[in-house]
Amino acid sequence: MIDKKGLLIVISGPSAVGKGTICKELIKRNIENLEISISATTRKPRYNEVNGVNYHFISKETFESMVQQGEFLEYAQVYDNYYGTPKKYVIDRLSEGKDVILEIDIQGAKQVRENYKEGIFIFIMPPSYKELKNRIMKRGTEAQKDIEKRMKCAYEEIKQAEYYNYIVVNDDLYSAVEKIYCIITAEKCKLNRYHIDLSEFKEELL
Amino acid sequence: MIDKKGLLIVISGPSAVGKGTICKELIKRNIENLEISISATTRKPRYNEVNGVNYHFISKETFESMVQQGEFLEYAQVYDNYYGTPKKYVIDRLSEGKDVILEIDIQGAKQVRENYKEGIFIFIMPPSYKELKNRIMKRGTEAQKDIEKRMKCAYEEIKQAEYYNYIVVNDDLYSAVEKIYCIITAEKCKLNRYHIDLSEFKEELL
Repeated sequence: MIDKKGLLIVISGPSAVGKGTICKELIKRNIENLEISISATTRKPRYNEVNGVNYHFISKETFESMVQQGEFLEYAQVYDNYYGTPKKYVIDRLSEGKDVILEIDIQGAKQVRENYKEGIFIFIMPPSYKELKNRIMKRGTEAQKDIEKRMKCAYEEIKQAEYYNYIVVNDDLYSAVEKIYCIITAEKCKLNRYHIDLSEFKEELL
Repeated sequence: MIDKKGLLIVISGPSAVGKGTICKELIKRNIENLEISISATTRKPRYNEVNGVNYHFISKETFESMVQQGEFLEYAQVYDNYYGTPKKYVIDRLSEGKDVILEIDIQGAKQVRENYKEGIFIFIMPPSYKELKNRIMKRGTEAQKDIEKRMKCAYEEIKQAEYYNYIVVNDDLYSAVEKIYCIITAEKCKLNRYHIDLSEFKEELL
């Protein structure tokens, strides 16, 4: 008998490493039972955004009261808005047997680790320092000073990799996505998800 | 920096579960660096068998002296002949970065567990009691009494599954092979194979 409960797969890594692209590709593969978590936010929906699809749009009051009640797996304030992952939403999906992908930054992943130890934590690693710098510069909006600041931040973030279960180097999109698919598939074959049931044998033998 | 040492993948399970077919299919997929271990035996080569390809054919004296020296990962005597997995051969391949598949019975896997704890132990599980019985009967050569004996043996063997790292149910050949491929790929992404090296960052930042 195999454990039907879904897996929470946390995908994190320094900014500009390509987490978002990897997750989009992963979802495109239509892997059975795999879905991406939907965050809650207090920011206003943009014209093409749908409540419950892109985000759960909630009021600041609701958000703050949920924080008080410990109802987030992780949350953060970005300028004037809050963003977070509602615990109940994720736990319900896992109970239904869905595997849930959470794409978050290093700080968020740390909070999830404290709130949901059974998660599978995957750190996306840049192929090199140089390549990460290229990717940050390609995003184009950054001044030299900001790039340096981001690189220093990445240095601190990469130190956190030792708290993760798996490291996936993003040297090639296809290969990184394939590795994450494999990690999910392998985790489902782990002994602790399998309850060895010999009763069927016993009945026939005894 | 990623650990270049290969993985020893032990594939075991009750007789007639389909281990051999799974391993043949796995090798057909031409997975990079993956190869199957070659056993040593004291039996005479058949007309189409090649030394060092099908088996390492060695004399009884050599085999027994190797047993004395603890030079096998596992071995067994079957009627008048010995079969075993030479430790040095496997360790050399792993050092060269090859991943080595070992397809063996439950007793052999137990010996490997004692001699090489770092191995990845995969238990191939029949989809059901009934299906295993069908497969044993399909092999055709067995009398009713022998089938019962084999089923009782399978019952004892399946109890050993709890000592393995992964359980793969062989309900479908393609899916079982895919799962083993994923297990190997995922194991290579595990944190303990990855040495986080920040020196490259440091040089540029400090």
